[in-house]
Amino acid sequence: MTDTYDEFIAEIKDIYNLKGIERILWWDQQTYMPPKGGLDRSLEMATLSTTIHSRMTSEKMGKYLDDLQRESVYEDLTPEEQTNVRETAWEYHRAVAVPPELVKELAKTKTGATQDWAKAREKKDWSIFKPHVEKLLDLKKQEAEFIGYEDRMYDALMDAFEPGMKSSQVETLFARFRDKLVPIVERIVDTGIRPDTSIVTAGYRISDQERFNEMLLPLIGFDMERGRLDATTHPFTSGTLHDTRLTTRYNPDDLRPAIFATIHEAGHGLYQQGHLDDHYGTPMGVAISLGIHESQSRSWENMIGRSLPFWKFFYPKLVEAFPKQFEGRTVEDFYAAINDVAPSLIRVEADEVTYNLHILLRFEIEMALFSGEIDANDAPQAWNERVDKFLGLDVPDDSQGVLQDIHWSMGAFGYFPTYTLGNLYAAQFFEMALKDMPDMYTSFENGDFSGFLDWTRRNIHEKGKLHRAEGLCREITGNPLDEDHFISYLNGKFGPLYGF
Amino acid sequence: MTDTYDEFIAEIKDIYNLKGIERILWWDQQTYMPPKGGLDRSLEMATLSTTIHSRMTSEKMGKYLDDLQRESVYEDLTPEEQTNVRETAWEYHRAVAVPPELVKELAKTKTGATQDWAKAREKKDWSIFKPHVEKLLDLKKQEAEFIGYEDRMYDALMDAFEPGMKSSQVETLFARFRDKLVPIVERIVDTGIRPDTSIVTAGYRISDQERFNEMLLPLIGFDMERGRLDATTHPFTSGTLHDTRLTTRYNPDDLRPAIFATIHEAGHGLYQQGHLDDHYGTPMGVAISLGIHESQSRSWENMIGRSLPFWKFFYPKLVEAFPKQFEGRTVEDFYAAINDVAPSLIRVEADEVTYNLHILLRFEIEMALFSGEIDANDAPQAWNERVDKFLGLDVPDDSQGVLQDIHWSMGAFGYFPTYTLGNLYAAQFFEMALKDMPDMYTSFENGDFSGFLDWTRRNIHEKGKLHRAEGLCREITGNPLDEDHFISYLNGKFGPLYGF
Repeated sequence: MTDTYDEFIAEIKDIYNLKGIERILWWDQQTYMPPKGGLDRSLEMATLSTTIHSRMTSEKMGKYLDDLQRESVYEDLTPEEQTNVRETAWEYHRAVAVPPELVKELAKTKTGATQDWAKAREKKDWSIFKPHVEKLLDLKKQEAEFIGYEDRMYDALMDAFEPGMKSSQVETLFARFRDKLVPIVERIVDTGIRPDTSIVTAGYRISDQERFNEMLLPLIGFDMERGRLDATTHPFTSGTLHDTRLTTRYNPDDLRPAIFATIHEAGHGLYQQGHLDDHYGTPMGVAISLGIHESQSRSWENMIGRSLPFWKFFYPKLVEAFPKQFEGRTVEDFYAAINDVAPSLIRVEADEVTYNLHILLRFEIEMALFSGEIDANDAPQAWNERVDKFLGLDVPDDSQGVLQDIHWSMGAFGYFPTYTLGNLYAAQFFEMALKDMPDMYTSFENGDFSGFLDWTRRNIHEKGKLHRAEGLCREITGNPLDEDHFISYLNGKFGPLYGF
Repeated sequence: MTDTYDEFIAEIKDIYNLKGIERILWWDQQTYMPPKGGLDRSLEMATLSTTIHSRMTSEKMGKYLDDLQRESVYEDLTPEEQTNVRETAWEYHRAVAVPPELVKELAKTKTGATQDWAKAREKKDWSIFKPHVEKLLDLKKQEAEFIGYEDRMYDALMDAFEPGMKSSQVETLFARFRDKLVPIVERIVDTGIRPDTSIVTAGYRISDQERFNEMLLPLIGFDMERGRLDATTHPFTSGTLHDTRLTTRYNPDDLRPAIFATIHEAGHGLYQQGHLDDHYGTPMGVAISLGIHESQSRSWENMIGRSLPFWKFFYPKLVEAFPKQFEGRTVEDFYAAINDVAPSLIRVEADEVTYNLHILLRFEIEMALFSGEIDANDAPQAWNERVDKFLGLDVPDDSQGVLQDIHWSMGAFGYFPTYTLGNLYAAQFFEMALKDMPDMYTSFENGDFSGFLDWTRRNIHEKGKLHRAEGLCREITGNPLDEDHFISYLNGKFGPLYGF
């Protein structure tokens, strides 16, 4: 039986290599591919995803999994081996359910949709993108039906990003969360306090911003020998264990987008770089879910990167990079400016308090699109109504509304809720890390981030998919996920800043 | 039968897509991959090349080819369809002939050899590299035996780069060529004339050089919407029809390497961009051979890029880019400096006259290694003797001699002759183009390169693999390849420059 397990591992490592290629090609498409390269790339991606799909769904794979899941065999495997079998079986069952023609059609549609989404956003014209959304909704509904679901169709799709999570659970959790979050936003708005943000909007040469970010990354623990940083419209993290590619976006008029996207993506990158060499190419060597991934990026971006201790260390370096812009300012001025809370239109520019309201509205719209309550025609209106209701704002055009995110063009329905799940996990984990290391924030002041990084390596990164998200949360915190840790984190941080 | 042909085309297009991916990953490896990314990349490349090999040698492929090559069927195909069947069959037979164990062994040996070649070159020590050469010679001889050959074993290897060419033909051609070339070099050396090259060695900011090259490329017809330019140690062209990636190398002290590598690679790139959309992914949509590829790059680099009319157009733009360095100089000064001819030790730095002597000596040594006349022990001495005989120079150490090129470490025996074949094809084709368009050089002065580009598109690029190199040469020029066109080109150009 060892032989079967070894052959099985060789097979899934081969498949992982092909997926690694897919991740690099995706990066390439967003960074350096020439404008018309998409013509060839969509064909290449279609062939590659078909190849992966047919390896993943082969008779051979089915046989390995049948053999390895036989009770007498499975029981003799180590927990790590069981993880590799269990998680591959989960992926196998999702993959065999979907016919290859649909896989190919989806891949081709996504490539075209991504290109036209960019065009539509530029022209502020939903009608350019709408037919792609209709097509994608149709294909994703077909996919969900093939995969199957217990409760709601949407669950089959969310499962790809947050395995095991049910939309009914999310609905309940998000409703409780919203009831506690909205009063905090109102309280902050009611204070009438707005920090002076001129300190971060004074004009910064992009090449100087790049240099600052590339200096920062290794100091927080990101290994630049095993990764790199580039610029894209929509920041992301891709690649593999020894080749982790981060992107950020630069605004010459505002220092915040690039710095915080860099730290955010570094959080994802540190998770990826934290997997173990020994588990390369297997479920034990990759992330649990997008929610857990996001918990890592949010910890770094917000709990660490937007904290005063972090900037006590980095502020002098920032002043060195931009001496003119920071003349006569203090780290406290900067800290206030990077924690400006105010309802706004663009999700990726939102502060960490109102951010979650952007997610709640997307979750509702996706649920409505999949329940059939609304269709692609209604999406802009459904969007704008919720922006008014949740954030009290008017959407001037669709580029600042329903067209702002790339996700739907990639067929990634069910993805958005993972952002808020990530925030909630982040707060719950961070509270435990602080319990284990009460001096953690002091070490940040000294530029030592290894305590937190090691804690996450040990408790999360090195465990790969050993647990699912819910199990990991119980393992680390002793409790299931809830909203209270995040709420108490917000009160603890923004109370002093806004005087409540 | 149409069905079989269509299925066959779908299959080879899929394989081509995987090869396109291989070409982008290769580019990525040389440009942006982080230092330790090689750990993951070598696994990815191994999986990808195994995938391609098994698709290429599948039973299904064998069956398609058997069916389509049956006389009654083959005769009903169009010439283009016949080309796709014939050339795929040729590749199939080479692929199935070599046992997978030998393919694997070769891949492993190459990786080790390439690493130790770099070490050996750095330490100027042939003995570090020699055992790898011995092993590679042994494996390549086995490979040649498996593939089979009519005349000489070396032909089976050269066939991978220059299909259909025989080494006995090359031997005769190169001997005649050498007898006419050596006197020209001697004449130039005897004049004692050396142009003042200070005009091209005055120091040039790399970012300014980049800007100049990126301005130049579209002006000669390279489509930047379907391609890009980056920097690598060794320039190359990769990618596909709508995604053609060129690289060049920058020297802040010398303007020549970057400009002429850019124009050279653009010549390769224009060939690639010139294939027809309709033939994408089939033998009708790719290049004939390395020799023909090189004929395109050499035409652009030397016959056009090192001509006076070309610089009558571009020199003012160069002066604009580097006003200080070109103060008080003329386009004629520049033209003389970029056509400095002198025997030298390093192939990739050689001028267009002596360059071919570097190739002739490599070809002779490879022939001797494969005929058994010499072995790896004798290679440095055989090299140094020929450098003395052909170029009149002493080789101070092996890093400037037998260790200078990467090719052997990659098992690429039979590759070198294609460089000189390319030069000869270039001259023979260019003469015909000039006959068809006597005013061609005048149009270059006006920055109009479309005449020559269209001529090559029509006569070469759009024909894919319809002809083999020899057939193309007869088709275009009415004659087989010979050395006289190149000799007369050299006399016509360097006679006036060196006063003979």
